[in-house]
Amino acid sequence: MADSPNCDLKSLSPLQLFEKVTEQGEKVRALKAGKAPKDEIDAAVRMLLSLKLSYKTTTGQDYQAGLPPKDLVLINNGTTKEEDEDLVDPWNVQTSNAKGVDYDKLIVRFGSSKIDTDLINRIERATGQKPHHFLRRGIFFSHRDMDQVLDAYENKKSFYLYTGRGPSSQAMHVGHLIPFMFTKWLQEVFDVPLVIQLTDDEKYLWKDMTVEKAYEYAKENAKDIIACGFDINKTFIFSDLDYLGASPGFYKNIVKVQKHVTFNQVKGIFGFTDSDCIGKISFPAIQAAPSFSSSFPQIFNGKENIQCLIPCAIDQDPYFRMTRDVAPRIGQPKPALLHSVFFPALQGAQTKMSASDPNSSIFLTDTPKQIKTKINKHAFSGGRDTIEEHRKYGGNCDVDVSFMYLTFFLEDDDRLEQLKQAYTSGELLTGELKKVLIETMQPLVAAHQERRKQVTDEIVKQFMTPRKLAFEF
Amino acid sequence: MADSPNCDLKSLSPLQLFEKVTEQGEKVRALKAGKAPKDEIDAAVRMLLSLKLSYKTTTGQDYQAGLPPKDLVLINNGTTKEEDEDLVDPWNVQTSNAKGVDYDKLIVRFGSSKIDTDLINRIERATGQKPHHFLRRGIFFSHRDMDQVLDAYENKKSFYLYTGRGPSSQAMHVGHLIPFMFTKWLQEVFDVPLVIQLTDDEKYLWKDMTVEKAYEYAKENAKDIIACGFDINKTFIFSDLDYLGASPGFYKNIVKVQKHVTFNQVKGIFGFTDSDCIGKISFPAIQAAPSFSSSFPQIFNGKENIQCLIPCAIDQDPYFRMTRDVAPRIGQPKPALLHSVFFPALQGAQTKMSASDPNSSIFLTDTPKQIKTKINKHAFSGGRDTIEEHRKYGGNCDVDVSFMYLTFFLEDDDRLEQLKQAYTSGELLTGELKKVLIETMQPLVAAHQERRKQVTDEIVKQFMTPRKLAFEF
Repeated sequence: MADSPNCDLKSLSPLQLFEKVTEQGEKVRALKAGKAPKDEIDAAVRMLLSLKLSYKTTTGQDYQAGLPPKDLVLINNGTTKEEDEDLVDPWNVQTSNAKGVDYDKLIVRFGSSKIDTDLINRIERATGQKPHHFLRRGIFFSHRDMDQVLDAYENKKSFYLYTGRGPSSQAMHVGHLIPFMFTKWLQEVFDVPLVIQLTDDEKYLWKDMTVEKAYEYAKENAKDIIACGFDINKTFIFSDLDYLGASPGFYKNIVKVQKHVTFNQVKGIFGFTDSDCIGKISFPAIQAAPSFSSSFPQIFNGKENIQCLIPCAIDQDPYFRMTRDVAPRIGQPKPALLHSVFFPALQGAQTKMSASDPNSSIFLTDTPKQIKTKINKHAFSGGRDTIEEHRKYGGNCDVDVSFMYLTFFLEDDDRLEQLKQAYTSGELLTGELKKVLIETMQPLVAAHQERRKQVTDEIVKQFMTPRKLAFEF
Repeated sequence: MADSPNCDLKSLSPLQLFEKVTEQGEKVRALKAGKAPKDEIDAAVRMLLSLKLSYKTTTGQDYQAGLPPKDLVLINNGTTKEEDEDLVDPWNVQTSNAKGVDYDKLIVRFGSSKIDTDLINRIERATGQKPHHFLRRGIFFSHRDMDQVLDAYENKKSFYLYTGRGPSSQAMHVGHLIPFMFTKWLQEVFDVPLVIQLTDDEKYLWKDMTVEKAYEYAKENAKDIIACGFDINKTFIFSDLDYLGASPGFYKNIVKVQKHVTFNQVKGIFGFTDSDCIGKISFPAIQAAPSFSSSFPQIFNGKENIQCLIPCAIDQDPYFRMTRDVAPRIGQPKPALLHSVFFPALQGAQTKMSASDPNSSIFLTDTPKQIKTKINKHAFSGGRDTIEEHRKYGGNCDVDVSFMYLTFFLEDDDRLEQLKQAYTSGELLTGELKKVLIETMQPLVAAHQERRKQVTDEIVKQFMTPRKLAFEF
């Protein structure tokens, strides 16, 4: 990196900043040990102090040698009160704000970039397709290096998509579909191959579950994923428990990542402790490795260094920040990322949904009647306490879960805007808004169930068989 | 476990004792919290104190909650002076005693059992063969559960052998052959299948080495191993980097072990720190997994729970103590073990040999001339300073490296005894003893080189191809 420390400090992640401070500290020590000229030492010390200040500004913590920043991001959500802090990591999403996590703050903290109108327009130009409503509505709101992916794509250099799921149970809810719906659209408009990781090993390690059960869930979840409509000739779905023992390249990349990440680092990034099992501690490398095309020699016909683009929910970003830190050190390109917001629970945006609470969302196995009951009974309302007050003051779309769900699933922009106006003005009552959501979700879930029925074990097997995908790089 | 804490405490490893103290501590807390009768609490506290005392006696450390015993065994070698302590772990063997490590103390510390005359006689009866000179001379000196292996064998329940090597360089020395020579003998006399792990991933993680280089060394080392004369129909040799991606069962067992071992535990057993990479931290599971036959579905035709017997140098025991702790918790049989002493460097028994110092031992690539020069120049002598003194007082076989090497490689018991007598009495001079060693090693190494020449890449490939071994369980 260049000598000037301030050139691009703002674009650095806390971990990168930490490493810059450490590096500069070593430089100062080396200069002193080598009895360098005083002005040279002084300049290096000034730079060190300036780097430490940047570190403190970015992380809110004093730099401590050997102690990387804790990335369990505690984001101050618009106020200065401690109880308003958001907690975001791969296992926890907590906010006390009914509107949900403050995503602009998250972008600053994670050091990612906002998906702005310019980028959306570029995607439209590159693909010749109207941008997906997840892009238009800020549901995919943040990215890393998507501009570089587009630069290359415009120069006829293609990429592959990588996304995944932790198969913690048979039951998937509609929120789980968000990354897959978007990935399917990306696959179509860019015409690119896709690998989907099912981290059944992760679920085995984290949950009270047998290896066999985790693998069974992986295959069941694969059916719901396939039902999203992925192109069988361009999509490879794999279970870690299965594919790790069937790929000549996957383990080699895992062990390369594992050599370049210390316990101190995963402690800082994921909050692991000394009491955690060594499986959890080394797992991040297993989620990292599919970012490198050499993990899939059969899939990509042995072609290495293909650019990877990862659409995922923002809580998965810590894995890929780590991956991007390691990539250049093992001679691999950094994966690019597209981050989505969290899907809110029916009860409100304060928490991420849980597959273990059947009332926390609409499940892909729900009947039309169950959908109706759940929405009517549990969907948190932004409406007023009485009809009179509602007519007078209007409802609050920012906290109304029915409206939030419609932003995810109602594709018609005009209709959504009308509903917003009508609800905000008080013209539309909560019950009426819920009715629109019910009528949106019932056919959507029914259609999914219909497609899922078509997904036989044989089709799952085909998707999960390592084979060359129909794509040339 | 039974309530009486003293029933079998002596047979417990430090880690097991640690767990017993922890368990009892929790019991006391639970009793106090549950306001149990005073005498019940008192009894539990007495037991706790007694367990803590056993822990201190065994480990030399005070029990500290959450801090497992450090198994980097510091053994007091016969005296009470600190500088006389032996250090034994998979990466270090240090003693200040010219006779080498005190193995009787090691047995007590590691909680293993001595291979005594009774056991050797049982092996002779079970196999109908004269015991190998490594057994007769105490070179394989310690075991775990070998009696149970023999019980089962006598009842027609067979087992498989597992041993291995870390391919840190192309150059292997004669000391590296010890476990393989003995394993070959075990394979023959018991007529059992064998798996040999080449931990190229370990070497990649620990050394400044590429993945490709480590794998290359693995294949080169396989040639020297094959040259020991293993039965191609009953032997499977595998590189981790290769086989992990080719076995449907290996990774599943690795992840099972990884779920049941915490960072605290590997810290205690192997001395890892927070600055170690996550690859090192999770590696012990990779050395553990071949102890379970389900790691080799192709090799054992899908048969699980076959008893495993591991011949290895005693410094590898920490891996298998960990494995034996985990085995019952993942529904697998504990592997049995046979431990060998360390092979001394030419310069003396204070250290284990190093493949990176060409003068530290006789290498398998050495010419007859090199062997002669090395022995004459570097072999530490137990002889006297002058011929006159030597004739008068005699030499010391306990510290003479030439004599030590002969105990490893000179099969004729009578001849060895004669040499010992003659050297001790002063009748035989150091130069003459060295001459015997030179004449023993030159043909031995030449014969090895001859056999190695026959080992083509094709033969290596056959040994390393996963396939059903010629054995029915």
